[in-house]
Amino acid sequence: MKICLAQLNYHIGDFVGNRTKILNAIAEARTAGAHLIVFSELAVCGYPPEDLLDYPWFVEACLNSVQEIAESCHGISCVLGAIAVNKGKGRALYNAAYLLKDGHIASVQYKSLLPTYDVFHEARYFEPAPSVHPVDVEGVCAGILICEDLWDQHNDFSYSRVPLSDLTSQGATLLINPSASPFQVGKAMKRKAVLKDNAQRFQMPLIYVNQVGAHAELIFDGNSMVVDAHGNVVLEMPRFQEALAYVELSSEGIGAEHEPSESPEYLHVLSDALVFGIREYCTRNGFKRLVLGSSGGIDSAVVQTLACKALGPEQVQALLLPSRFSSEGSVADAVNLCQNLGNPYTVIPIADVFDASLNALKPAFGSLPFDLTEENLQARIRGQLLMGWSNKFGHLLLNTSNKSEMAVGYSTLYGDLCGGLSPLGDVYKTTVYALAAYLNKQGTLIPEAILTKEPSAELRPDQKDSDSLPPYEVLDAVLKLYIEKRMGAASIIAQGFDHVLVNRVLQLVNRSEYKRFQAPPVLRVTEKAFGGGRKMPLVARYD
Amino acid sequence: MKICLAQLNYHIGDFVGNRTKILNAIAEARTAGAHLIVFSELAVCGYPPEDLLDYPWFVEACLNSVQEIAESCHGISCVLGAIAVNKGKGRALYNAAYLLKDGHIASVQYKSLLPTYDVFHEARYFEPAPSVHPVDVEGVCAGILICEDLWDQHNDFSYSRVPLSDLTSQGATLLINPSASPFQVGKAMKRKAVLKDNAQRFQMPLIYVNQVGAHAELIFDGNSMVVDAHGNVVLEMPRFQEALAYVELSSEGIGAEHEPSESPEYLHVLSDALVFGIREYCTRNGFKRLVLGSSGGIDSAVVQTLACKALGPEQVQALLLPSRFSSEGSVADAVNLCQNLGNPYTVIPIADVFDASLNALKPAFGSLPFDLTEENLQARIRGQLLMGWSNKFGHLLLNTSNKSEMAVGYSTLYGDLCGGLSPLGDVYKTTVYALAAYLNKQGTLIPEAILTKEPSAELRPDQKDSDSLPPYEVLDAVLKLYIEKRMGAASIIAQGFDHVLVNRVLQLVNRSEYKRFQAPPVLRVTEKAFGGGRKMPLVARYD
Repeated sequence: MKICLAQLNYHIGDFVGNRTKILNAIAEARTAGAHLIVFSELAVCGYPPEDLLDYPWFVEACLNSVQEIAESCHGISCVLGAIAVNKGKGRALYNAAYLLKDGHIASVQYKSLLPTYDVFHEARYFEPAPSVHPVDVEGVCAGILICEDLWDQHNDFSYSRVPLSDLTSQGATLLINPSASPFQVGKAMKRKAVLKDNAQRFQMPLIYVNQVGAHAELIFDGNSMVVDAHGNVVLEMPRFQEALAYVELSSEGIGAEHEPSESPEYLHVLSDALVFGIREYCTRNGFKRLVLGSSGGIDSAVVQTLACKALGPEQVQALLLPSRFSSEGSVADAVNLCQNLGNPYTVIPIADVFDASLNALKPAFGSLPFDLTEENLQARIRGQLLMGWSNKFGHLLLNTSNKSEMAVGYSTLYGDLCGGLSPLGDVYKTTVYALAAYLNKQGTLIPEAILTKEPSAELRPDQKDSDSLPPYEVLDAVLKLYIEKRMGAASIIAQGFDHVLVNRVLQLVNRSEYKRFQAPPVLRVTEKAFGGGRKMPLVARYD
Repeated sequence: MKICLAQLNYHIGDFVGNRTKILNAIAEARTAGAHLIVFSELAVCGYPPEDLLDYPWFVEACLNSVQEIAESCHGISCVLGAIAVNKGKGRALYNAAYLLKDGHIASVQYKSLLPTYDVFHEARYFEPAPSVHPVDVEGVCAGILICEDLWDQHNDFSYSRVPLSDLTSQGATLLINPSASPFQVGKAMKRKAVLKDNAQRFQMPLIYVNQVGAHAELIFDGNSMVVDAHGNVVLEMPRFQEALAYVELSSEGIGAEHEPSESPEYLHVLSDALVFGIREYCTRNGFKRLVLGSSGGIDSAVVQTLACKALGPEQVQALLLPSRFSSEGSVADAVNLCQNLGNPYTVIPIADVFDASLNALKPAFGSLPFDLTEENLQARIRGQLLMGWSNKFGHLLLNTSNKSEMAVGYSTLYGDLCGGLSPLGDVYKTTVYALAAYLNKQGTLIPEAILTKEPSAELRPDQKDSDSLPPYEVLDAVLKLYIEKRMGAASIIAQGFDHVLVNRVLQLVNRSEYKRFQAPPVLRVTEKAFGGGRKMPLVARYD
């Protein structure tokens, strides 16, 4: 049996576009002599549809689309991810995989394990499958399990149900796993381990089909795979691009037409993921050009470089917005960066707007000393001018904050926190440096001075980040333990960190929830990003 | 048996403060001769703790607190809401109610039905109870069910389990229901109906104890109740305040010491809820004073009036920020409002900052015509000056947007969408008018001119809301059907609304998700508010 893995990019809610794409892939696979084509989870409506699932018209459109695809599906079997209606008690819907054949729906399997943690909210919408049963696919007894159904013991917790075991006890000899598994650094290795572990545990080849695409916070990297019954990866599909791939299943086992590719290097993948996330957000939302504030600092330099890779340098407008506290070096560095990248830039000094604002506030502020207020004012004036540009020319404003700053609140709400998308909001400052070095590998794009100068917000004379924050190596280490590893202060201190420093950092994180509540969507690249996957109370006492 | 209902206000994560409050209530109830005291759901840690539940130190602190309370609980039985650890497969925790007696934990009942819709995410944290069993409470066979456990058939969907039926079949004759049920307009009636229905269905008295307090988006109104076995409400506790109340359970049935109170009028409750939500947010987060932009329009007038009721007029700073497009009437109306309310105000004209900003952008904008850019610029300058005031003096900035505007995106991101809390973000414009009239009932606070003038953003000459939007009566009706009732365009049109208008309104709503993603937390007062309870994709195609 020749099996086609269809790794495609779906647009949430675009039933016509998704259906066309699915039907084209079916036609192509049939022409290539495939007996079966497998699409990813919720392919028909796109994943994750979130609260659109609460709308009856959305559900109806999805069901109609499944029906239309079924009617066009001849000469090949098809496993297709979509929703199904639950007519019994419980949630109104199932997350389902349809088996289509000979112009109709041959069978449907529901998802058993509904991920409801971090960025996943499936129990909000779906009822779990009451049971699972293998199906006949072109003479093979196959189990169809959707995404999380394979992960019964591979999370922080284990599920009480083991759908794969239920299937093998009923005679399944092949596993088909339509998925929607978002990218994060290191996730590819984890996925591979889970697939191998399951293949070996149940001595069965596995076909894993992931979607590709990015939907604001979530980046789906594709990287679909086939693992044989011994746990060997026999096919690994590319990342961040659509593709069809084929495997041959016979009595000898399962084999790919190509060798599996090498697991790519970490910064390379991270860079690709961020570029892909930016490009997808723009194309999905109809933005052709980007604008950003280019300060001469490392964060904006990296965002600008990624943006140029995403849309091409001529589509990236840099605004240099120097204040009286900006060093000459900063402006020169930003200009050099733009020249290296070849993107247009405009210098708009903010001194006059700053003075006008201070004058307006003077009757109220009197002789009160310069403090955080005036620092924030400069950041907000920059935000306002950037948004003015965005409004006038229709460019999407990219946010340039990094995860370290967002974590400790070293950022100004409505100032440098402005933006339609935050490419680095899940990238710690130390990783931003590593990423910059990586981006410079094939020739200097980011000027050396930007890489080596001491980080500064330049919002008051001679300001340095290190005046307010611990060194980033230490800060980032503490933040990772607190945010990603969820350790408390005592456990972090037990790792050898100074207790005063740890308590101060945790307090900064806790007291900045209100800023992150209003921050732009962040491209998620770690196991715990700020945004939809992290719900901390705004009103609480837990320092 | 004399039973005490403890309707208290807990601070999320404040284990010491919550425990002190609980122990004081136990002592008071024991002194009053009560045999049993009932606290609300998750009383020990506060509800909703959200992702704090992922932190081991938080879990440990909660369990320790339960143990300490148990050890102090003598001479009275106690039903106490807290978490419990799941040592088996599945999620790490249970949502639990402990029965405390004679200095130890006598038994523990877990929650069976875990609300996971709208603002509730309990399946994210908790494993459902494997089973329920009645317990002996001072000689009475009592069923302890937590909040949603009573609502098996009272949501948009029904649960397959009916915990109450399991309990009655095992002989329970009294039901105890610790809850954390957030306020919304009309919710009190719904709760009463559910309690009555259950009491009649199972012929059993019900004791329902809700918490009071507000945690950013969610307002908990208390309003705890006791219903007898015939479905009569025999006790109804006050709203928005802490209280202990007592009922006597005997072989004759259950009776209250006081008559049930009348169900209060809708605008009265709405006003109380909003005032309470503002006050709670401030006191919880340590803000003593508020600041807001007072435009002379209806929205800011109502927010200002509510703010004065919440903290007292001397704590509410109004900033009047007229531009060249502000009518003289607006400034005069705003001044009148401040004089009526007795709160301080300051006038800061924005013309010079606006001109400086236009000058700064002039080399880039050239002779391009005045458009939305310049309108937004004014709103953002106001936001920047308000935030400057907030930073300098430590006042919390109140947002003044209403739900109609937030729905259709008739608001400027980082401009009038600024603020730490949005009191009217879940109140439609037509309801804002009704609320204003209500607030004026005991003497004019909001000047008549503000109530009668045509709504205008005053961001360009002679601008009126009606230039861009349908009349608010029509707009709000369509929005309610789309947002609260989740109807699609076709169904709304079928109700008699013009199809062009409906399609335009829905498109405006759909295309404004990105603004709401960065909007302040909104006090939730309807069944579907913007914020944590409504998760719509940012990247999707569903017009």
